[in-house]
Parts: sequence; structure tokens; C-alpha cells
Amino acid sequence: MENMNLNKHISGQFNAELDDIRNRVLAMGGLVERQLEQSLDALAALDAELAQRVIEGDHKVNGMEVAIDEECTRIIAKRQPAASDLRLVLAISKTITDLERIGDACVKIAKAAMDKRSKNQQPLLVSIENMGRHATRTLHSTLDALARMDADVALELHKEDTKLDKEYEGIIRQLMTYMMADPRSIPEVLDVLWAARAVERVGDRCQNICEYIIYYVKGKDVRHISYEEMEKDLKL
Amino acid sequence: MENMNLNKHISGQFNAELDDIRNRVLAMGGLVERQLEQSLDALAALDAELAQRVIEGDHKVNGMEVAIDEECTRIIAKRQPAASDLRLVLAISKTITDLERIGDACVKIAKAAMDKRSKNQQPLLVSIENMGRHATRTLHSTLDALARMDADVALELHKEDTKLDKEYEGIIRQLMTYMMADPRSIPEVLDVLWAARAVERVGDRCQNICEYIIYYVKGKDVRHISYEEMEKDLKL
Repeated sequence: MENMNLNKHISGQFNAELDDIRNRVLAMGGLVERQLEQSLDALAALDAELAQRVIEGDHKVNGMEVAIDEECTRIIAKRQPAASDLRLVLAISKTITDLERIGDACVKIAKAAMDKRSKNQQPLLVSIENMGRHATRTLHSTLDALARMDADVALELHKEDTKLDKEYEGIIRQLMTYMMADPRSIPEVLDVLWAARAVERVGDRCQNICEYIIYYVKGKDVRHISYEEMEKDLKL
Repeated sequence: MENMNLNKHISGQFNAELDDIRNRVLAMGGLVERQLEQSLDALAALDAELAQRVIEGDHKVNGMEVAIDEECTRIIAKRQPAASDLRLVLAISKTITDLERIGDACVKIAKAAMDKRSKNQQPLLVSIENMGRHATRTLHSTLDALARMDADVALELHKEDTKLDKEYEGIIRQLMTYMMADPRSIPEVLDVLWAARAVERVGDRCQNICEYIIYYVKGKDVRHISYEEMEKDLKL
């Protein structure tokens, strides 16, 4: 009887710990989402002060990555989770790496916003902002799917990244015509190019997180396989 | 007595499993190193056939990532490793992600080598090849440090990445002057730019792997901290 209570207690604590890292990764996701929004606000308004805040805020994102990863390692060592509990911890440990990289992308966007030369490239900045808002929505939905561990939504989001890729290609083409029309603008257009690239990478990171969600829910690694195969796996 | 033998046996098997994933991550590293060398050979000679082989070879890299990651998860679930054994498994699980991304960089370099327009940019290609050979040496040394789990070498290599970053900045500047001198060349120079960017990222990935080596050896997460702090940690 006492043993049963003890087990219940231990398992209750364990569940609380798993809930805790789930909540923390969602809080980290929320912070990264705000960083992305603010970096785009800063780019749209060429607001150097806001951009500076985004750059300074990145250490919080980094700190959360390290702290959550430490907690994941501690849980594995102490609780020796198996099956879906282990997959949850491993999926979270991978997700925070991608969230941290999205944080780095926000810093790149913020740096473009601080660059005084960028102001000559307003029409390009508008395109990047639009693409960035699209990426923000994708990140938001990805975090929602993560909160609900919804593999079907994760698969849909994964597929949607091609739209963001197409937007990105359009911006690159636009950017080339600008440079060809006015070669003196090349250095400043290239600065804008890095911001566009950073936004495009946000979509790739969200795809990775969607793969971890599917891995957690279905126990199946879906990296590097086609959508046909993914869908077959999801039906299992 | 029987129990002791059993324990020895289990622990012997466990050690064999740890050796096995260590060997497999090194084999994966060797494959990625060859992919990098061949993608640079293909770029230097604009050898489309070799480039195609690199692109086709990437699925092997991807397959190794998935297989090793599965094995890491299996070991954690079955063996419930603690302390340095657990750190080894987690460090390997992170290392393979970065190796896989270096594999993706090789594909990007190979694609630039296949692009017929690239042949007009021979002087730029020479610069990228030089930078690429530097990155290859860094990868080679990083894999050596990984094989010997040498945290001191890992720290030295981590610091050396600034050299590669400087080379990259030089290429970007060179590339800008080319585009400004001949705006019609902009689309093809941008193709070369992506290859340069991919090479630069190889250095960043090596830095990540060096951080995992230090994490394994010292039990300390050194991401996002300064070299002064890292050195202090290494003396512990």
C-alpha cells in the first residue's frame, strides 16, 4: 500500500516535471514569436530602438534553451522515461534548438532594421515584412500544434512551407532587378537579402518542429521522407 | 557469482553499444567530409557529373542521421544511461543533426557546380574553393577531436571559426564589386553567393560540434557564453 502511494507520488511528480518542460518550451516559443513580431515591426518602421531591444532580448531566448535542455537531461537521468515520455523529452530537446535559431533569425532581421542604408529599399522591406507576417502566422500555428500535440495539423503546416519558399523566390527576383537597375544599391540590397533569407529560414525551422510533433505523436521519424510516406505513416 | 557475470555481460554489451554509436557517428562524419571534398572538387572543375553524385549521395547522410538517432533513443530507453554515458548519447544525437546540415551544404555547393552560368565566375569560384578547403580542414580536425573527445582542441577549433568568417566577408566584398562592375552578372554571382554562404555555415556547424565535445567532456553547456567563460569552465 505504501509502495503504491509512493509510486503514485513519484509518477505524479514525474508528470508535473513533464508538464513543466512542456510549459517552458511553449513559453520560449511565445517569447520567440514576440521577438519575430517586434523584429518585423522594427523593419517596417526602421525603428532602431525597437530593433536594439530585439537584439538585447536574444540572450533570454538563449538562456531558455540552455535551461530547458538541462532540465530535459536531468529528467532523462533521474526518471529514465520510456516510450512516449522519452519521445516527449527528446522532441522538446530538439524543438528548443530550432526555436533558438529562429531567435537568431530575429536578430538578423533587427540588424537589417538598424542599418540606415535599408531606408532606401522601402519597397523591398514591405515585401519582406509581408513574408515575415506569413512566417509569424506559421510559427504561431506550429506552437499551437505543439501545445495540442496535433500531428495532423503539423503535417498540414509542414506542407505549407512551399508557399513561404515561393514568396522568398519572388523577393530574390525582385531584389535582383533592383540591383541590376541601380548597381550602386547592391551593398544595401544585400543587407536586405540577409533579412529575407532569415525569414525564409523561420519556415524551415517550423517544418523541423512539425517533424518533432509527428515523431512524438506517432513514434515515427519522418525526416527526409516524402509527403506520401508521411501520410501513410500518420494513418498507422 | 552468476549475477556478477550477468552484470559484467550487460555492462559489456552496453559499452559495445556506446562504442558502436561512436563509430557510426565518426563514419557519418567521414562520409560528410568526402561529400564536402567532392562538392568542392566539382565546383573547382565545374564537373556536373561529380556534382550529381554528391547530390545523390546526400540520402546516405540523411539515412545515417535517422538510423543513429534511433539507436540513441533505443539506448536511452533500454540502458537508462547516467552521467557521462548519457552525455555521450545526447552529444552524439546533437552532432548528427549538424553533420546532416553540413551534408545539405554540400548539396548547395554541388548545385552551384552544376549551374552552367557559374563558369563565368571562375575567379570567385577559386576564392570559394580556397575557403571550402579551409572549412574541410576544420571539419576534419573537428571529427578528430570528436574521435578523441578532446575538449582543448575543440575549444581551439571553436575560436578558429572567426578566420573562416573573415574569409567569407572578403568573398562577399569581392562578389559585390563583381556585381557592381557588371550588373548583368548579378543572377549568376548570386548563385555563387549561396555556395559561399553554405561553406561559411560549415564552420558554424563545426563550432556546434565542438560545443557538444566540450559538453561531453566537461559536463558543461558552453553555448552562448564568451571564450573567457569557456576557458574558465575548461580549467575546472
